[in-house]
Amino acid sequence: MKIPWQDRPDNCNDVLWRYSENPIINRNDIPSSNSIFNSAVVPFEDGFAGVFRCDNKAVQMNIFAGFSKDGIHWEINHEPIQMQAGNTGMIESDYKYDPRVVFIEDRYWVTWCNGYHGPTIGIAYTFDFKEFFQCENAFLPFNRNGVLFPDKINGRYAMLSRPSDNGHTPFGDIYVSFSPDMKYWGEHRCVMKVTPFEDSAWQSCKIGAGTVPIHTNEGWLIFYHGVINTCNGFRYSVGSAILDENEPDKVKYRTQPYLLAPTELYEQVGDVPNVVFPCAALHSIEEDKVALYYGAADTVTAMAFGRISEILEFTKKNSL
Amino acid sequence: MKIPWQDRPDNCNDVLWRYSENPIINRNDIPSSNSIFNSAVVPFEDGFAGVFRCDNKAVQMNIFAGFSKDGIHWEINHEPIQMQAGNTGMIESDYKYDPRVVFIEDRYWVTWCNGYHGPTIGIAYTFDFKEFFQCENAFLPFNRNGVLFPDKINGRYAMLSRPSDNGHTPFGDIYVSFSPDMKYWGEHRCVMKVTPFEDSAWQSCKIGAGTVPIHTNEGWLIFYHGVINTCNGFRYSVGSAILDENEPDKVKYRTQPYLLAPTELYEQVGDVPNVVFPCAALHSIEEDKVALYYGAADTVTAMAFGRISEILEFTKKNSL
Amino acid sequence: MKIPWQDRPDNCNDVLWRYSENPIINRNDIPSSNSIFNSAVVPFEDGFAGVFRCDNKAVQMNIFAGFSKDGIHWEINHEPIQMQAGNTGMIESDYKYDPRVVFIEDRYWVTWCNGYHGPTIGIAYTFDFKEFFQCENAFLPFNRNGVLFPDKINGRYAMLSRPSDNGHTPFGDIYVSFSPDMKYWGEHRCVMKVTPFEDSAWQSCKIGAGTVPIHTNEGWLIFYHGVINTCNGFRYSVGSAILDENEPDKVKYRTQPYLLAPTELYEQVGDVPNVVFPCAALHSIEEDKVALYYGAADTVTAMAFGRISEILEFTKKNSL
Amino acid sequence: MKIPWQDRPDNCNDVLWRYSENPIINRNDIPSSNSIFNSAVVPFEDGFAGVFRCDNKAVQMNIFAGFSKDGIHWEINHEPIQMQAGNTGMIESDYKYDPRVVFIEDRYWVTWCNGYHGPTIGIAYTFDFKEFFQCENAFLPFNRNGVLFPDKINGRYAMLSRPSDNGHTPFGDIYVSFSPDMKYWGEHRCVMKVTPFEDSAWQSCKIGAGTVPIHTNEGWLIFYHGVINTCNGFRYSVGSAILDENEPDKVKYRTQPYLLAPTELYEQVGDVPNVVFPCAALHSIEEDKVALYYGAADTVTAMAFGRISEILEFTKKNSL
Amino acid sequence: MKIPWQDRPDNCNDVLWRYSENPIINRNDIPSSNSIFNSAVVPFEDGFAGVFRCDNKAVQMNIFAGFSKDGIHWEINHEPIQMQAGNTGMIESDYKYDPRVVFIEDRYWVTWCNGYHGPTIGIAYTFDFKEFFQCENAFLPFNRNGVLFPDKINGRYAMLSRPSDNGHTPFGDIYVSFSPDMKYWGEHRCVMKVTPFEDSAWQSCKIGAGTVPIHTNEGWLIFYHGVINTCNGFRYSVGSAILDENEPDKVKYRTQPYLLAPTELYEQVGDVPNVVFPCAALHSIEEDKVALYYGAADTVTAMAFGRISEILEFTKKNSL
Amino acid sequence: MKIPWQDRPDNCNDVLWRYSENPIINRNDIPSSNSIFNSAVVPFEDGFAGVFRCDNKAVQMNIFAGFSKDGIHWEINHEPIQMQAGNTGMIESDYKYDPRVVFIEDRYWVTWCNGYHGPTIGIAYTFDFKEFFQCENAFLPFNRNGVLFPDKINGRYAMLSRPSDNGHTPFGDIYVSFSPDMKYWGEHRCVMKVTPFEDSAWQSCKIGAGTVPIHTNEGWLIFYHGVINTCNGFRYSVGSAILDENEPDKVKYRTQPYLLAPTELYEQVGDVPNVVFPCAALHSIEEDKVALYYGAADTVTAMAFGRISEILEFTKKNSL
Repeated sequence: MKIPWQDRPDNCNDVLWRYSENPIINRNDIPSSNSIFNSAVVPFEDGFAGVFRCDNKAVQMNIFAGFSKDGIHWEINHEPIQMQAGNTGMIESDYKYDPRVVFIEDRYWVTWCNGYHGPTIGIAYTFDFKEFFQCENAFLPFNRNGVLFPDKINGRYAMLSRPSDNGHTPFGDIYVSFSPDMKYWGEHRCVMKVTPFEDSAWQSCKIGAGTVPIHTNEGWLIFYHGVINTCNGFRYSVGSAILDENEPDKVKYRTQPYLLAPTELYEQVGDVPNVVFPCAALHSIEEDKVALYYGAADTVTAMAFGRISEILEFTKKNSL
Repeated sequence: MKIPWQDRPDNCNDVLWRYSENPIINRNDIPSSNSIFNSAVVPFEDGFAGVFRCDNKAVQMNIFAGFSKDGIHWEINHEPIQMQAGNTGMIESDYKYDPRVVFIEDRYWVTWCNGYHGPTIGIAYTFDFKEFFQCENAFLPFNRNGVLFPDKINGRYAMLSRPSDNGHTPFGDIYVSFSPDMKYWGEHRCVMKVTPFEDSAWQSCKIGAGTVPIHTNEGWLIFYHGVINTCNGFRYSVGSAILDENEPDKVKYRTQPYLLAPTELYEQVGDVPNVVFPCAALHSIEEDKVALYYGAADTVTAMAFGRISEILEFTKKNSL
Repeated sequence: MKIPWQDRPDNCNDVLWRYSENPIINRNDIPSSNSIFNSAVVPFEDGFAGVFRCDNKAVQMNIFAGFSKDGIHWEINHEPIQMQAGNTGMIESDYKYDPRVVFIEDRYWVTWCNGYHGPTIGIAYTFDFKEFFQCENAFLPFNRNGVLFPDKINGRYAMLSRPSDNGHTPFGDIYVSFSPDMKYWGEHRCVMKVTPFEDSAWQSCKIGAGTVPIHTNEGWLIFYHGVINTCNGFRYSVGSAILDENEPDKVKYRTQPYLLAPTELYEQVGDVPNVVFPCAALHSIEEDKVALYYGAADTVTAMAFGRISEILEFTKKNSL
Repeated sequence: MKIPWQDRPDNCNDVLWRYSENPIINRNDIPSSNSIFNSAVVPFEDGFAGVFRCDNKAVQMNIFAGFSKDGIHWEINHEPIQMQAGNTGMIESDYKYDPRVVFIEDRYWVTWCNGYHGPTIGIAYTFDFKEFFQCENAFLPFNRNGVLFPDKINGRYAMLSRPSDNGHTPFGDIYVSFSPDMKYWGEHRCVMKVTPFEDSAWQSCKIGAGTVPIHTNEGWLIFYHGVINTCNGFRYSVGSAILDENEPDKVKYRTQPYLLAPTELYEQVGDVPNVVFPCAALHSIEEDKVALYYGAADTVTAMAFGRISEILEFTKKNSL
Repeated sequence: MKIPWQDRPDNCNDVLWRYSENPIINRNDIPSSNSIFNSAVVPFEDGFAGVFRCDNKAVQMNIFAGFSKDGIHWEINHEPIQMQAGNTGMIESDYKYDPRVVFIEDRYWVTWCNGYHGPTIGIAYTFDFKEFFQCENAFLPFNRNGVLFPDKINGRYAMLSRPSDNGHTPFGDIYVSFSPDMKYWGEHRCVMKVTPFEDSAWQSCKIGAGTVPIHTNEGWLIFYHGVINTCNGFRYSVGSAILDENEPDKVKYRTQPYLLAPTELYEQVGDVPNVVFPCAALHSIEEDKVALYYGAADTVTAMAFGRISEILEFTKKNSL
Repeated sequence: MKIPWQDRPDNCNDVLWRYSENPIINRNDIPSSNSIFNSAVVPFEDGFAGVFRCDNKAVQMNIFAGFSKDGIHWEINHEPIQMQAGNTGMIESDYKYDPRVVFIEDRYWVTWCNGYHGPTIGIAYTFDFKEFFQCENAFLPFNRNGVLFPDKINGRYAMLSRPSDNGHTPFGDIYVSFSPDMKYWGEHRCVMKVTPFEDSAWQSCKIGAGTVPIHTNEGWLIFYHGVINTCNGFRYSVGSAILDENEPDKVKYRTQPYLLAPTELYEQVGDVPNVVFPCAALHSIEEDKVALYYGAADTVTAMAFGRISEILEFTKKNSL
């Protein structure tokens, strides 16, 4: 696997910089789609696989598998993922959106926002991105932005999530929960909360986990989204934080400034204006590279790049 | 009369396609106007006439007559329509917006959203688009999107409308009402309601009649608007439905996917972002053509084209 | 028929005074009822008949016929009214509440709030309070408090009503509409609106017609309810107004002070605290008497009495 | 143990009847209390023990142990329960309210609404009502009305609960979740939802589990609360339902009418008017008796009695 | 002057106890009144004078002068106070409510909530409670609960107030402002804010100054109201605080528990249920007595008594 | 000093026209900035100085000094203004935004929205734009858009402001207040209010003072912003008004149409779409020129030009 990459442009001092050919996936890249965004990718075989949120033209939300040689040009299936029963009977899904994907031990785990009398966290696993096995929902409704850690912590699976309500939730903090078996969850702990408006307004309304945590020698590096409630609606930006390796409810560092905010036309204009929403990050500690995938304006999928060492440094220097 | 027309572009598989020179009317095409949108046209004499919503620079809403040889290039009067008394004394109009026009029997009928202690449905007729005669409002407030059928049904005039509240109504279904005389209305029936979010989210918040129904051998073909309530506001798209010829409260088919949604910059950016709002449709059954007029972003007026046979087929195949 | 009556108590200077044995109907006076209130009565044969709102213990709202010799002690049927088709096929009724009854020409007409995709005005007639014939709803949703005039005006039936929304409407004015045939309605006119808070706060949130208009030599005397929106909810009081005999959208007089407000425990405490809601008024011009029936706290039914001449005088003297 | 009991009064046909000396606990029965309500009791030793919600005069919510010989006259401790660590380190509790108590296998389990960055379900156990051991919260916030089953089902603990938001939640359905160990919870299933307004308005806004399920030969009998959203606030009533013995997410019967609604002054007037809120039920299948404990007006504690056989019959006969 | 007084009842341990003949003023004690409450009294000549909020039966809010020999039995004028121009031209008053009165130097100052394009603080002075001279409003809208200190502080007049919005303000903290001349105000400082819900819920929604500060050797003793936002509306209770003598924005002590909360029927039931609202306090340091006047349920006026030394002690011992 | 200037483009008939190189300041023109907008400039020495609102990448709001030779190209300091104590001890500032600057007598006065337990009006003075001295806040919270007059009126400083609430205030009118000393403020008068929707919808939701008033022979010319509440959020436009020279609460003329509304992409798209917000106006009566500075989309700073004589004429001719 080779991380998709593009060097930082001249004149740019930002810790994250956008791919010059953004967006990498357009709203109508499969025949049925209204929009393709908030999607997740992982290294797979000699290239990459992913699970993509493709809203169709009835604006039904569903998740689709896709494949890529270089992580930038993607072939997305034209049919949504058909689940089979995993660790239980088949679970209802009124809708599926905002997937994340992570490899743990021997298989790929997918989490997403699953419609079961309201949004909660759906879980499935796959070995090949062809057959998917749906497990018990992790939590009661209402919840969104469930993101698994790539390793067990103290022998238990760990998941970040954001308790919500059943509408356009105007609040939201990040919690961590643990499970011995991907079926029963507990030991819920609050990880980090929204900030006072005067300290860091971009993350003062709600926050939610974004990418799968990256194991670094400083702890778990996460990219998360933060939302400010402006007089004309929500604006979503990207921040980073470093969580303690063994006690991930302990936040070691968390950026006061954002790393990425909606400033490009494809991020400012679309089905939901002013959204950058991180969902996946390919990375290589050795090469000191991260390639961030994010949804833009709830319409298209874009990428940004950064140096892990610089991001860690930035997060520590600009911590709240 | 020759229907305005432009062939479907190559690479385009959509059932409706946009006019390449959109928008056809800009926001400041008459000296006083802030915006010109949500307007209605009909064949008239050897060309076309229309009634246009032109908000002035005080953002007062009013309707103006206009004329065109080709249905695309329009001369709009610089003064709003001055009404004379029709079937009653003069009716108050705090504002007038979102007109529709239809020819029935011997004259042109105009309906619009009329400000009478809140929005309700105003009615007027004209023979020549010079003199207009205002009749009794059809309903009590609060109502919007009143659209007359082009023929009497069982001897009575028929009108679609959408009961509302007195603000930015966050709900709304389509009803049909009947009148023996364009003065008294009754026999109100519910025609179609918003859809469950998971079935067709783009029309899950409110819907409203758009164009005058088109008489086809399948029944009445209508284009309507549907609204999704996103976290950053309403987004308006266009759907189609086929109503029973004699009992128009019976919906034979109704599209689950939209036919047109805001994806162009002039639809996504403007006084009200993310709006496509259909108000009129020139058509020819013989030529199998329809030319749809729609307001874009509550700012400008645009057009799209389609084949009636394909739209009927699409509506039947993709019915909810 | 002898009007129910009780003289004004000593020490009382109010223009309306309560019956000493209030409430006259208790919440559980029929086996199924949770509450009996907002109900209407008329002279009938040698006594009185009425249509009563009895919410059952599932809190389903329905209307029941009842009979009384003296207008005070009532026998209410244990089964709700079963409607037959009147001037159209059977109309849906998700619920029925807040009835009014009036005799016009040859029969008794009942109007009520009828659940048809939201509240609107249901209409039925009866000759005997045994068989009831349901007609077309008067209006599109959303409407409440439809009250017919006891005489035709200029040859047309006339109805007061209050356009609403589909929830706990926080606004509302009184309109009048006309019909040649009890089927089609039009000529809608605004009659009276809420008052500025500083002028008469008790009627500053919403108002609605109450009793059937009484024909006096001053014009139509009506009792209506007015609502103030306090920090702990709505408070309903009773006012009076005099409408022009031939043009009932012209208000000749309207009381600035209320005539009756919730001050007794059975009006202040109940399923909805702080409500007095007038629905019917037996009256005799000759005897100069009116007996007002009103719902108290949405729970029970109560009565108050007054002298018509005094009420007219009061309304004229204390007019807004 | 002898169930507290009082025979049904003459003239009373209700399936539940109130204790004649209600309320049994007054708002200031301990020196610090503002109100004592929504509390739970169980047989204990030769009498009864309970866990009581006593809000103090700072209106801080906390739970207190108490003891009684007859189940009616109670001695409540003057100091709140001090928790020790149970199956984990000490869990934060910003507040504790609305306890339930149940004996399972070898000990008494207490559940309550626990303030951990918002309301969720706290769990503790005790052997003696002197020492209490607090365990992991069952769920992420936001949740209320967590009620344990008295037996394991298919080898797992089972708990009813109601997902909520972080305010005066205007929605809410009952779910069941399972746990192998009282630490990790999963297999969440929706049990029953609010009803359409026209079917049973008293339970159309939100519902929540009340008493510990009673094992009967028909299945699990539960008393739950239902809420109607009136124009002047929430009104809480009591219903009953019968759940399948082995699959408690299957509702066999559920009452359309309520069994108990606020009609007495101590239920209609208080810190929160119009509330009856069931939290515990002593019962004897042999004697065919149940004694229901409920909070009234969020201020005092009251009791009602019934015959189990009659309640089962009523629930089956009047099922939705 | 002799402070009105009644000894603490036996069995009562509360720091404030109610007058046994409460309410002392009923809702209709003058002919025009709907309610008389939230009113202020001071020693005057050989008895007492007061300014009373009497809402009339149009529910117009106005203030009336009144006089009493014993502070308990009051003669209230039947006409509202007519203002003359004080330190400026006549100021508009759409309404006047919630007066406070204080003697400073040579005259009595009245402050109240004055309707000037929304609520703000009106100011007037009188020497004799016959002629009143209205001065400039202290602040811009929106403000309520303006209460003057009885002495100048550092040579400036000082006023407590609560910035608000123009509706049923759901927030509110107490500020102090200063003026050299009762015309221009500045040096605004925040005094005390609402408490976190878990610390003292009764004062977690909004607070406002109540009585004129009492000069004690501990500092300024104030009684203030605090509000909890229950699911069925606001509930108003009374607390006490001690402010620094020279820097009144410094809070030395403030009670966590309330001193008085609505528990009597005349406090729980009325035009606005569940309100006790302190507006005046007659006191004698020498006799160690305070007589508190408070509005009950926005309907009537009531009294409570206490020992100043005990209240100071209580406030210090139970401070947040 | 030479006013920045650009002649009206051909084909343009507008009374205000945009600078062809707009925006003049971009969002990231200093290293820390997320956006630079709503900023104020004045003639200073041989060029211009200004105070700029630069939100940083934590979206903390603060004000920065800047300098320019030509009024178009600006050097903005990289560090925010550090205040020293002015006429009092240091005042808290949770945030600072939307500055205005005016020269009065001997120094430059800066006003801004100052975070002191909510937004209110901060005041400071400077002689050199290097040292700034912060004075008492003018008012209690909640207030925004404080703008000083450039001359004393009747010997007192005068300030326009807009009372607000503590959120995205959905209402707001313009008031004037006076001060003898820039410390104490009073004599508050309402200047102008929002308009009825049907008269001038663009200013029907809220209005606020924009630029420092310009002394003309017609009176004080002001540019202000007006807001319409569309279904997709607030839209900010610019109007003008002429206030009486000596009694500035008297509005002589006020434009019904707007002078400038968001129609350019940099005004329609950004952190808050559809905003033009005037904050400063350089002008020369002699040259008959005004150069207006305005924030665009809460993101960048732009300019427009006009002829004072034409603007006065336009304001008088198009007055409400």
